[in-house]
Amino acid sequence: MSDTISKMMQSMGKAARKAGRVLSVASTEQKNNALLCMADTLLNRTDYLKAENAKDLVQGEKNGLDAAMLDRLALTDEGIEKMAEGLRQVAVLNDPIGEITDMHFLPSGIQLGKMRVALGVVGIIYESRPNVTIDAAALCLKSGNATILRGGSEAIHSNKALANCIQLALKTADLPEAAVQVVETTDRAAVGELITMPDYVDVIIPRGGKGLIERISKDAQVPVIKHLDGICHVYIDDEADTEKAIKVAFNSKTHRYGVCNAMETLLIAESRAVEILPNLCLKMVEQGVELRGCAKTRKIVAMNEATEVDWATEYLAPILSIKVVSGVDEAMEHIETFSSRHTESIITENFTTARRFLALVDSSSVMVNASTRFADGFEYGLGAEIGISTDKFHARGPVGLEGLTSQKYIVLGDGNIRT
Amino acid sequence: MSDTISKMMQSMGKAARKAGRVLSVASTEQKNNALLCMADTLLNRTDYLKAENAKDLVQGEKNGLDAAMLDRLALTDEGIEKMAEGLRQVAVLNDPIGEITDMHFLPSGIQLGKMRVALGVVGIIYESRPNVTIDAAALCLKSGNATILRGGSEAIHSNKALANCIQLALKTADLPEAAVQVVETTDRAAVGELITMPDYVDVIIPRGGKGLIERISKDAQVPVIKHLDGICHVYIDDEADTEKAIKVAFNSKTHRYGVCNAMETLLIAESRAVEILPNLCLKMVEQGVELRGCAKTRKIVAMNEATEVDWATEYLAPILSIKVVSGVDEAMEHIETFSSRHTESIITENFTTARRFLALVDSSSVMVNASTRFADGFEYGLGAEIGISTDKFHARGPVGLEGLTSQKYIVLGDGNIRT
Repeated sequence: MSDTISKMMQSMGKAARKAGRVLSVASTEQKNNALLCMADTLLNRTDYLKAENAKDLVQGEKNGLDAAMLDRLALTDEGIEKMAEGLRQVAVLNDPIGEITDMHFLPSGIQLGKMRVALGVVGIIYESRPNVTIDAAALCLKSGNATILRGGSEAIHSNKALANCIQLALKTADLPEAAVQVVETTDRAAVGELITMPDYVDVIIPRGGKGLIERISKDAQVPVIKHLDGICHVYIDDEADTEKAIKVAFNSKTHRYGVCNAMETLLIAESRAVEILPNLCLKMVEQGVELRGCAKTRKIVAMNEATEVDWATEYLAPILSIKVVSGVDEAMEHIETFSSRHTESIITENFTTARRFLALVDSSSVMVNASTRFADGFEYGLGAEIGISTDKFHARGPVGLEGLTSQKYIVLGDGNIRT
Repeated sequence: MSDTISKMMQSMGKAARKAGRVLSVASTEQKNNALLCMADTLLNRTDYLKAENAKDLVQGEKNGLDAAMLDRLALTDEGIEKMAEGLRQVAVLNDPIGEITDMHFLPSGIQLGKMRVALGVVGIIYESRPNVTIDAAALCLKSGNATILRGGSEAIHSNKALANCIQLALKTADLPEAAVQVVETTDRAAVGELITMPDYVDVIIPRGGKGLIERISKDAQVPVIKHLDGICHVYIDDEADTEKAIKVAFNSKTHRYGVCNAMETLLIAESRAVEILPNLCLKMVEQGVELRGCAKTRKIVAMNEATEVDWATEYLAPILSIKVVSGVDEAMEHIETFSSRHTESIITENFTTARRFLALVDSSSVMVNASTRFADGFEYGLGAEIGISTDKFHARGPVGLEGLTSQKYIVLGDGNIRT
């Protein structure tokens, strides 16, 4: 059985590699046509998509999936329209492929520059949301990469149906159908195979819980763009503007709870705690946020106790831990110890403190006087994102089209030789 | 035993991580001081270095190393001066760390940019040349990364002695000694440990034969910057200028033989073979190059036959394989099949052919009318190189200081929140 899976994955890999070569030099027009055609196909085949999705929902209920999981799994009219809209948005983004930068002459007389190129074949491993199938396919296609998609077994019918739509569109746009392939078995051996085929797959992007991503990173024999958790901090400095502090901290926590760029821990300078915490905590509590504080915090506002476990937890929920610190150094030390290196923000009016925080804090986004909620591919103007890399290698922070590409050197000469 | 090695490597990893944090924000002056101090220390301790190196040479002779290997292993006065000079050159390079680019305002009012940062801890695994110890330490130090160096067992005394000099210099410059560490055991288990400590090591750079690099890539649990072989091609097009063609092809092959950017296969358009091959082959043979040709080549110039094996071989020697092709398409097909994706050059005066070759050939350097020998960090103006990446992920082609860094997003605001 596992041998069959291995053969199947190898053959998908070979087909992807071949399709990738075609896609890597496809014209912008051809890629955009395919994306727009995908959007039309989804809208024209809404009934079919919903019927296939219903099979997954029935099976999911049988298997005892909870309401939240079923909700994530469901393809609604609105959801399908959103996917189509997403495809159209990717179509209007600038094509990164072929971009030439830094052309300059060198003393030897050669002219050197860099040309942006596709990575090759991207493997995406994700959990229940079927919309990832479309989002990932769109970004990879636009950046000239072939894709092998491995969704969760609970969405297998939906993903196959979406793959049908994608392949129809690729055919219409005269691009190879193997440019986007969906793994059609739910056998877990397929994942093991997908992440250990360096000849056919150039990078793996897992989208899902921390457990999934850690497992994949451990076993992969190709690079992995990791999106681990977001334990984000806002630090209110001695020299913070009170109004900005309350506004930014409140927004960072309450704008949305279940997202990786929400604040999980508030740090505040001792000199400002008595003035700011009562107002800020009241606003939080009124919004329904449960507060957990250190001893000093609890002397100012009554709340539950925050323990070591709290500092290391990504709540993804209306819960906030609060710690009073002596100043920016203790704040940075706390961040160093507990941050997941996603996003941290300082609230301060002091130039030198801001500059130090920006330089010293080792997270994918470091902010001054701005909400952590801005750490997002759309907000950063990338047009779309395939994930937020908590890694430093290759891509860091929100990963858009550029993160799915590489650069090669190009040299123009007139018969130049080395002497 | 292996448990002892594991503990030792873990503790080196922890120390490197800690030192890396200090180094990542060390000032340019401090890093340059350390580099210059290293150069002085090497020169002041030449006798000590040569004495320690002699131990390796004696052992190497006992172990039956051949003359070429002993030559690579030897530390001479001249070699030590060259290392010191290399350190001084790295000291004058621009510091990449902290560079801020692309700052721009977004519709939300935030100001977004990118700041260049160190990767963290770099593990270097290399074979006999002890000068790698100094080169790698210098580049990693300047780019703000801590390093763990694992040299070949045949150079263990030399490497320990160089490590002593490095550590003395780090101390003088008030930088943590663990910023550069040399693995002092020759037990191979240390390599296995080094490449599977994602908590402490961010990237591995193996320098050595293909076998070493493939083995490490297979087992590593962190990203690997791979420098595999260089099977480089020059293609002389239908519309090549004869003089440039002969000059560039001759230089690409004969400027140096044992290097990865030397031409190994010459491709030539059928329409130009009769005119160009006799002269070019004569020059090559006069230079002592052994020629191996396809059937069509051998009808024009007598030589040994080239087989499939030749097309796939990196000779690293005065041997050249030659193939007559119908035109640029067959040339690109051959390159697609046999190239190691290092460097390829086309000789042509045709604008559209040149443009197609640049876009379609998937190698780390693609050239027009220039010698493949230019594919090199020094020639590209990087100041130095830690290797030439034949990979597409993170860094491609010659890797200098920038390839050892990453970028984080920075956001400046004035109390901005998401609405």
